[in-house]
Amino acid sequence: MYGETNSNPNDTREFDAIYLGGGAAGRFGAAYCGALGGRVLIIDRWPFLGGSCPHQACVPHHLFSDCAAQLMLERTFSGKLWFQNLNDKIVSIKSIVELFRSGRVGPHAVMNYQSKEMLGLEFVLNAEARIINAHSVQVGDLKFHSKNLVLALGARPAISNLPGAQLKGVFNYQSFVEMLDYEPGNTVVVVGGGKTAIEYGCFFNATGRRTIVVARHQVMPMLKDAESRSYAIQMMAEQGMEFLENAELINIQSDEMGKVQAVSIQTAQGVIKVDTDFVFMALGERANTELVAQTIKLDLDDNGFIKVNRRMQTSIPCIYAVGDVTGPPMEMFKSRKEGVCAAKNIMGKVSEYRAIDYPDFMHTHYEVSWLGLGEEEARQRYANVKIMKLPPENPNGFDVGLPAGDRMMLYLMMKPRMSGFQKLIIDGDTRKILGAFHIGCGAKDGFQYLNHLMKQGLTIDELADMDELFISPSYFIQLCRLRAGDINLAWALK
Amino acid sequence: MYGETNSNPNDTREFDAIYLGGGAAGRFGAAYCGALGGRVLIIDRWPFLGGSCPHQACVPHHLFSDCAAQLMLERTFSGKLWFQNLNDKIVSIKSIVELFRSGRVGPHAVMNYQSKEMLGLEFVLNAEARIINAHSVQVGDLKFHSKNLVLALGARPAISNLPGAQLKGVFNYQSFVEMLDYEPGNTVVVVGGGKTAIEYGCFFNATGRRTIVVARHQVMPMLKDAESRSYAIQMMAEQGMEFLENAELINIQSDEMGKVQAVSIQTAQGVIKVDTDFVFMALGERANTELVAQTIKLDLDDNGFIKVNRRMQTSIPCIYAVGDVTGPPMEMFKSRKEGVCAAKNIMGKVSEYRAIDYPDFMHTHYEVSWLGLGEEEARQRYANVKIMKLPPENPNGFDVGLPAGDRMMLYLMMKPRMSGFQKLIIDGDTRKILGAFHIGCGAKDGFQYLNHLMKQGLTIDELADMDELFISPSYFIQLCRLRAGDINLAWALK
Repeated sequence: MYGETNSNPNDTREFDAIYLGGGAAGRFGAAYCGALGGRVLIIDRWPFLGGSCPHQACVPHHLFSDCAAQLMLERTFSGKLWFQNLNDKIVSIKSIVELFRSGRVGPHAVMNYQSKEMLGLEFVLNAEARIINAHSVQVGDLKFHSKNLVLALGARPAISNLPGAQLKGVFNYQSFVEMLDYEPGNTVVVVGGGKTAIEYGCFFNATGRRTIVVARHQVMPMLKDAESRSYAIQMMAEQGMEFLENAELINIQSDEMGKVQAVSIQTAQGVIKVDTDFVFMALGERANTELVAQTIKLDLDDNGFIKVNRRMQTSIPCIYAVGDVTGPPMEMFKSRKEGVCAAKNIMGKVSEYRAIDYPDFMHTHYEVSWLGLGEEEARQRYANVKIMKLPPENPNGFDVGLPAGDRMMLYLMMKPRMSGFQKLIIDGDTRKILGAFHIGCGAKDGFQYLNHLMKQGLTIDELADMDELFISPSYFIQLCRLRAGDINLAWALK
Repeated sequence: MYGETNSNPNDTREFDAIYLGGGAAGRFGAAYCGALGGRVLIIDRWPFLGGSCPHQACVPHHLFSDCAAQLMLERTFSGKLWFQNLNDKIVSIKSIVELFRSGRVGPHAVMNYQSKEMLGLEFVLNAEARIINAHSVQVGDLKFHSKNLVLALGARPAISNLPGAQLKGVFNYQSFVEMLDYEPGNTVVVVGGGKTAIEYGCFFNATGRRTIVVARHQVMPMLKDAESRSYAIQMMAEQGMEFLENAELINIQSDEMGKVQAVSIQTAQGVIKVDTDFVFMALGERANTELVAQTIKLDLDDNGFIKVNRRMQTSIPCIYAVGDVTGPPMEMFKSRKEGVCAAKNIMGKVSEYRAIDYPDFMHTHYEVSWLGLGEEEARQRYANVKIMKLPPENPNGFDVGLPAGDRMMLYLMMKPRMSGFQKLIIDGDTRKILGAFHIGCGAKDGFQYLNHLMKQGLTIDELADMDELFISPSYFIQLCRLRAGDINLAWALK
């Protein structure tokens, strides 16, 4: 009924919190609660801590995105230098998924180790919990009592209602890593326009398969700077990605074995039929609320996520909810910080949290990082917007020899249009940074700190005075330094 | 006598500064001087702006380091997934150098464009200048007069005095990209233990050649954290790099055609003879002072670099010197900021600069970023040092499934010891960050901002409150968050 357990029989204190779910929100919340001196227990249905991230979500996605970046490079240089000829070659998806299945035990093990040996967390894993009431949880024949419950139950991919959505060959990010047992054919259909759709779509494309992305509205709507979004989409299109926007999957057809063999797509130009044995659905997330709903009635929002106040309390104050189960953004920092926020409140340190003004990130074949305002919104809100970007406005467009950055150098030398795009948006009056966008490699980590600095009011002058590590993935520091001497910031840019 | 010129005949103002040299220091200094309202002229001997960086130094090094990272990955996965079999295969160095020679015109062109069209700089390129006096420079039959001269003349590789150092087959980073006209054989000898030696050495190694690094003292002495340095060196050794420390090249032998065919190396264990047709010397830099020495006598330091005060003035106050010509660190930010510092002083804004407390970076096959104190020095200076690192101390050493980061995911899945190492050093009393070390990919850009924040007194609590972009190249934010709740930071680490 339950598996690995790390509990301290010598600790007779009542639990301050039981975290139901040991993923990003639960594990970080429990660790913080413990660090504050509380006694916490994590109960998780999986035999490891870390939740869906290392098992089905972030870690596999990052593996697949690494493969996409690597394959794009190898295809671009196919037959040149030492590169093998990958032209027209299709790469096995199944073997990469199998690599992930065997490799994911590594992060599992180290997170268990860290939680047990370094953080001293108490937990019961591989356990089906049942909530008895707002203070009690049962696991098999064990009952645990706690001052508070914290629901860190996560979310799972939304399932399409379309007939045929249950056919073999129709996947989401979860079933893809758990269930794939055949080599997909030459054509992939991806349904959705958000991060997951684009990230997995680029991977499928990079394996050499025709990849059609079917989006109900726009693809990549979250990337608010039009020029940055345009570069990202153009680079995907040049890799052969096909985008059907304002389109909808209307039919999934089965072969005689019950496996998908074709789909029909409604577009503005009419219905398109595509033969495929592999459909990937990325339709968003649904909260895992079933466990709690068996016993307790909590207020949910219109999308079924558990409603919480800024202290992470549900409609029953001693029951907290944190992480994906409370709704978007489905990001690691948000889950973890909600877990920590609940821990603080449980331990008597009043704390409020809501995810706003955060940096953001997604993969195409590239790493795409952004923060703050896009140019269009900046111009609506500020009278004197200044733009710095690489490549600069110039007669050759993207086909020029900058930016250059780590892991982009081969592109720079042979196909410079592929070496990335970056943009900094500045209020010319206050000289403050309003937004930053980067498509390339290696800027993501910096965006974490840059976002923190921007919220403190970072100016072009402060940026210009930092010490860049050249060749820098982002050129923001040096671009600022070239211009900061001008009190009017009147450089010859649009 | 001189080539491309962009000067403004309608501008009758006297020049505020003539920058001799349009590299990092000269171009940035001139741009800043212009932004401050000054009139500036750049004179450069090359037909492009940007200096040695895009032509012989940073850009080729980064290309070669990208190749090293790429080749290490392909060798590690040789024959697995879609990867070709590179076992025992030697990759052409010459073709990569040729790619660089053809590709470097791209960055040249865009820097000329940016300087002319966007920054409005006046310049004379492809020009041999002669300094007439502290206010006058001659180029062919043109004479230019200026209130100030700024010497941004750069540096060049030091040349060994050893007999045979002039043989064909003995290179430095400059002659390597300019002169290589044959395919090096199977064994490379690299002389030096600093950044250039290691960076080029890793590239040669990654091409499949036996690579022996001969260092007079330690290799990588600049990486002050012993554990981080040890990881970096261990990973190089596992790629087959051979290190001879406390060793010295004592003899270079020629074949009958005047090309190197062997070297003798003095080690503590005796003299080793190595057959090789390719020796790479990385012995540091010498200042380009000849142009100025023809006419003007300036104070030089013991290593021949031009002495400057913190306003970048030489021993003749209206002559400034900036960039590599003033000595180490030979880093882009230092050159550029010295150029800017001179510009400010020339334009009447008193400014002082000295490169201290900067972040640092180098390539092995990995990206290696660091800032602040290593653990050993931190423990000497602080009583209560706390360490967080990935992988954590654990019975399996590096062979565990963290860290995981972009471009490290394939390693994580199959050879986790290769997925990187990272370490954060904290003063447990003030909770301030003392140092950070990262070996992997994608953390470099962040170290620029992290260093700025650390100088402002960044604490574990502030880091813990930032929004990480997961999977993060560095785990500093999340590692802090797991522990920051503990007022004693008494977690179970050494």
